[in-house]
Amino acid sequence: MQYQFTVEGMTCGHCERAVVHAVREVDTDAVVKVDLATKQVSVESDKAREVIANAITEEGYKVAA
Amino acid sequence: MQYQFTVEGMTCGHCERAVVHAVREVDTDAVVKVDLATKQVSVESDKAREVIANAITEEGYKVAA
Repeated sequence: MQYQFTVEGMTCGHCERAVVHAVREVDTDAVVKVDLATKQVSVESDKAREVIANAITEEGYKVAA
Repeated sequence: MQYQFTVEGMTCGHCERAVVHAVREVDTDAVVKVDLATKQVSVESDKAREVIANAITEEGYKVAA
């Protein structure tokens, strides 16, 4: 599935990588793209949207949409 | 010696840790404190100020003062 999230709190390249890694921890095969400027995180994954959202939240970022 | 730097570009906890680690790479025994809000980095080190400043710069941050 293809998911789109608006994620608050990502400020720099480290944050981008932290989000990518957090998602990959729950789905090794996930394809994750982060656009820092627009706060958009797109994820291609077989996992449920909630699982991906939780992984991002637990990394310390806020999934706004 | 005790040094004080104003460092631009640190935005989050990852950046704090990146700066601390960068300084410790040139001086394992350095005592480094970062205040993100005020952009202040204080370093206690036996190395020259320039060595510490270069380590911070090479990590991708700007030493403004």
